[in-house]
Amino acid sequence: MEGKEEDVKLGANKFSERQPIGTSAQTDKDYKEPPPAPLFEPGELKSWSFYRAGIAEFVATFLFLYITILTVMGVSQAKSKCTTVGIQGIAWAFGGMIFALVYCTAGISGGHINPAVTFGLFLARKLSLTRAIFYIVMQCLGAICGAGVVKGFQGDSKYEMLGGGANVVAHGYTLGSGLGAEIIGTFVLVYTVFSATDAKRNARDSHVPILAPLPIGFAVFLVHLATIPITGTGINPARSLGAAIIYNKDHAWDDHWIFWVGPFIGAALAAVYHQIVIRAIPFKTRA
Amino acid sequence: MEGKEEDVKLGANKFSERQPIGTSAQTDKDYKEPPPAPLFEPGELKSWSFYRAGIAEFVATFLFLYITILTVMGVSQAKSKCTTVGIQGIAWAFGGMIFALVYCTAGISGGHINPAVTFGLFLARKLSLTRAIFYIVMQCLGAICGAGVVKGFQGDSKYEMLGGGANVVAHGYTLGSGLGAEIIGTFVLVYTVFSATDAKRNARDSHVPILAPLPIGFAVFLVHLATIPITGTGINPARSLGAAIIYNKDHAWDDHWIFWVGPFIGAALAAVYHQIVIRAIPFKTRA
Amino acid sequence: MEGKEEDVKLGANKFSERQPIGTSAQTDKDYKEPPPAPLFEPGELKSWSFYRAGIAEFVATFLFLYITILTVMGVSQAKSKCTTVGIQGIAWAFGGMIFALVYCTAGISGGHINPAVTFGLFLARKLSLTRAIFYIVMQCLGAICGAGVVKGFQGDSKYEMLGGGANVVAHGYTLGSGLGAEIIGTFVLVYTVFSATDAKRNARDSHVPILAPLPIGFAVFLVHLATIPITGTGINPARSLGAAIIYNKDHAWDDHWIFWVGPFIGAALAAVYHQIVIRAIPFKTRA
Amino acid sequence: MEGKEEDVKLGANKFSERQPIGTSAQTDKDYKEPPPAPLFEPGELKSWSFYRAGIAEFVATFLFLYITILTVMGVSQAKSKCTTVGIQGIAWAFGGMIFALVYCTAGISGGHINPAVTFGLFLARKLSLTRAIFYIVMQCLGAICGAGVVKGFQGDSKYEMLGGGANVVAHGYTLGSGLGAEIIGTFVLVYTVFSATDAKRNARDSHVPILAPLPIGFAVFLVHLATIPITGTGINPARSLGAAIIYNKDHAWDDHWIFWVGPFIGAALAAVYHQIVIRAIPFKTRA
Repeated sequence: MEGKEEDVKLGANKFSERQPIGTSAQTDKDYKEPPPAPLFEPGELKSWSFYRAGIAEFVATFLFLYITILTVMGVSQAKSKCTTVGIQGIAWAFGGMIFALVYCTAGISGGHINPAVTFGLFLARKLSLTRAIFYIVMQCLGAICGAGVVKGFQGDSKYEMLGGGANVVAHGYTLGSGLGAEIIGTFVLVYTVFSATDAKRNARDSHVPILAPLPIGFAVFLVHLATIPITGTGINPARSLGAAIIYNKDHAWDDHWIFWVGPFIGAALAAVYHQIVIRAIPFKTRA
Repeated sequence: MEGKEEDVKLGANKFSERQPIGTSAQTDKDYKEPPPAPLFEPGELKSWSFYRAGIAEFVATFLFLYITILTVMGVSQAKSKCTTVGIQGIAWAFGGMIFALVYCTAGISGGHINPAVTFGLFLARKLSLTRAIFYIVMQCLGAICGAGVVKGFQGDSKYEMLGGGANVVAHGYTLGSGLGAEIIGTFVLVYTVFSATDAKRNARDSHVPILAPLPIGFAVFLVHLATIPITGTGINPARSLGAAIIYNKDHAWDDHWIFWVGPFIGAALAAVYHQIVIRAIPFKTRA
Repeated sequence: MEGKEEDVKLGANKFSERQPIGTSAQTDKDYKEPPPAPLFEPGELKSWSFYRAGIAEFVATFLFLYITILTVMGVSQAKSKCTTVGIQGIAWAFGGMIFALVYCTAGISGGHINPAVTFGLFLARKLSLTRAIFYIVMQCLGAICGAGVVKGFQGDSKYEMLGGGANVVAHGYTLGSGLGAEIIGTFVLVYTVFSATDAKRNARDSHVPILAPLPIGFAVFLVHLATIPITGTGINPARSLGAAIIYNKDHAWDDHWIFWVGPFIGAALAAVYHQIVIRAIPFKTRA
Repeated sequence: MEGKEEDVKLGANKFSERQPIGTSAQTDKDYKEPPPAPLFEPGELKSWSFYRAGIAEFVATFLFLYITILTVMGVSQAKSKCTTVGIQGIAWAFGGMIFALVYCTAGISGGHINPAVTFGLFLARKLSLTRAIFYIVMQCLGAICGAGVVKGFQGDSKYEMLGGGANVVAHGYTLGSGLGAEIIGTFVLVYTVFSATDAKRNARDSHVPILAPLPIGFAVFLVHLATIPITGTGINPARSLGAAIIYNKDHAWDDHWIFWVGPFIGAALAAVYHQIVIRAIPFKTRA
């Protein structure tokens, strides 16, 4: 009994198990923290599933940018926003695509579709450095292609006039607010990803893996509801890079660092919060 | 067979079991009403999971206020609501955050994120008084910090001009209507929480725990759809307190009692309805 | 093998089992069509769960009308619909409440919250006539009370000026179109209810009972998207009656028959389609 | 161990299994790729479930067109889109109906409701040619009837004035953009259908079959958010044909080929991507 965590279920608590403060060793019977992924795993590079995962990340990020930036264009080009799906529709496009794509690619690549998610999971040692870099490269390439197709459909001049879906800090907000919004927004997303993929909870709470893609998609939707007026909402460096490269205007490049630094800090904070505060993994002896 | 409840499944009914009126003892084989939580559980205070649960409530309520009040600001500052996510987007922000946060924190703290929920579950003796008070304090601190960050991003004068997301009874409605709206709205939420965490249903209906966070989030969304025009919708004293403290104007403080008294009455009614009418717990011998 | 149905799974088909045309006897091993409920079940009237189910239907229909009619009022009273949750928000209120309330009350009363659903399930002999009548009476009483509270909050004159959420056939549509819209709309809802509660599918497809309340709620949402411009959308005689009694104006009463006749015809067609075409129940020997 | 695929779970990866590049034989223990459906299965034509499946496709496509085209009419006829459910409401109608109808008919016919889905699954040899043609004919008949009822409700002149929900390439977009939008849009949908019905994933990931109808419905919703401004969004030849026949104006017929060629190319690409890239089925020896 000693040495096990006391957990509180949805809306209730159970007192049968208790972990005294400072106890670091744990002996939960029903789950094992998987061992940390190695930094380099040479065997990966010889497996087809490694490249297949990269292709899946490329295709998913391509579709993500295509649908979302096209939705942004449709709203931007209308004189009255009432005749479009509106800003809320844009938020649904971003969140909904993440829901559908995480659902489709989770079994192939883990369904990251976002360098910040890959970075956060790498910090938690859930995948190798090799794989993390490969994923991020493929995500960025997919994003560039997705935004490129949208530009092709809209025509160059119209695409540029409408802002190309690029992320910039809006008038009336400081760079610090923009950076802060990206940090907290990415924290919300990556914290949800960690909660949804928690080895311990998956072992115990049947609803966690079943619903998983839905709260992850909702996290993206919700952050867009809140921060579209501030930065257009990045929380995904591949999305910001793809739109910036295809749009390619100075004012988008000026703020661009915010959409890498912010998400990576946010993802790191989420990894720290989940792995250290919630799971206390450094204080455990790994199985 | 006698002494067991006759239950009606989704859209159908089964007559194999029957409970004569007035039978108080029950012998359902497949679930046990857990024993009531003690008022004070000294052991809790020595367990790390108790403090971890408080931290999780703090972080969740922080993120809840941050995303929702920022969404309110984005809508409030626009000249035309059509160029924003709109009032419906605000309702999605509140409901969607509760969905995502209940999903993430249910396994850590129970996922209350709301003093009225904590109060309702305390009345049903699902957690100790010590824990209830600790949760409520952490929720209020989290809410204050979340609203504070939004004020930091918006700037003081703009934040105050836009109303700061504080709850007040709107012109055209009496204080009684505002109080009533908070009572019934919180009843909807806490009744859903009780239904989703019902020990008996969890034992029997597989869909109950899997979907649980979704109807809870929807309950919050729906109450916002209905009562934003009346009170801005509280149904969460921590949310109301956080916004009021950071906004700190007289007219918000004047109505503030409504957003504690209303939710606590609503939560108490939901506890009475679920525990006494639906579950008839006082008439049962506890296992 | 012979005598079993050939079924096609989601997006695929399996040819291992085949049912020759005209075969009426079936021997599916994994499920049994439950026997038809008796018309009168005297034992029910002595069981507490019978009355508890009626109370649950009353409370659910009360909350349904309260949230939905209040949402309608909030939209109706605004000069610009852009400053409200909009017509789409009204559709979400109706559909979302059905989702949440079916989730909460399915285990208590079956979660009908609608006389047309009760009527359809009665035709399929899923509940007794006694219970059907009791449910319908409780639903109507709950609806009247729910609409009454909204009128109390809004004030009599404002409530009446805004139309009170009552169902009428809109200008530009014939009574026949209104009746047709109610018939097909209710067919969509009750067909979804039958699909979600199908004893055979529940036995075989694990996802059917888990998601069940969600497509039922969506069915209500979708019918509102389509037919609010025609009739305001009834597809629930209790909802129409509650609003009509509290509103109590001639032009609402003139069309009122449509909101009973239409839903009951639609529910009957759905029962016929599901029980006879899809399940071929009259041609089977009941187990 | 060799010869098995290395798979990466949601947000993580597991390195216990590895498939060297170029390995074609696989010996996954936990699932078997079902054998390809025969082109002609004479036995089907004698089974009641074959015709029942066709009826279910007819009814589902009828309801799909009825609800969606009626929603389009409601939005089109209003002077201000703000007084309607809006373009976003139209997107919800299309996506939501696919969610509800896939949920209801998956166990009867596979829940295609779309010739492009049927074509994609036929290419992957998931159903016979006989069945594919029968489904497509029934879908088209259902769609024509659904649009016809909407015309009946609206009246001929109003229906035609409002465009009848027919798909055309909008001013400002080339036919090539329209065709491309249909191809990628249908790819998103059919790729999601393949992911949701993957025999391997169904065997392993419990959440895949449970949620399945939801991401499929969301895929339809999301493509509508993005491409309503370009083509009105087809991605379903039956939907486009039904609206075109009932609307029956030259400018709808001129572009009509796009709404067959585009979806069929998109579905074929999705079949190739899923079966060859993701599942590498041609390189496996079928069990």
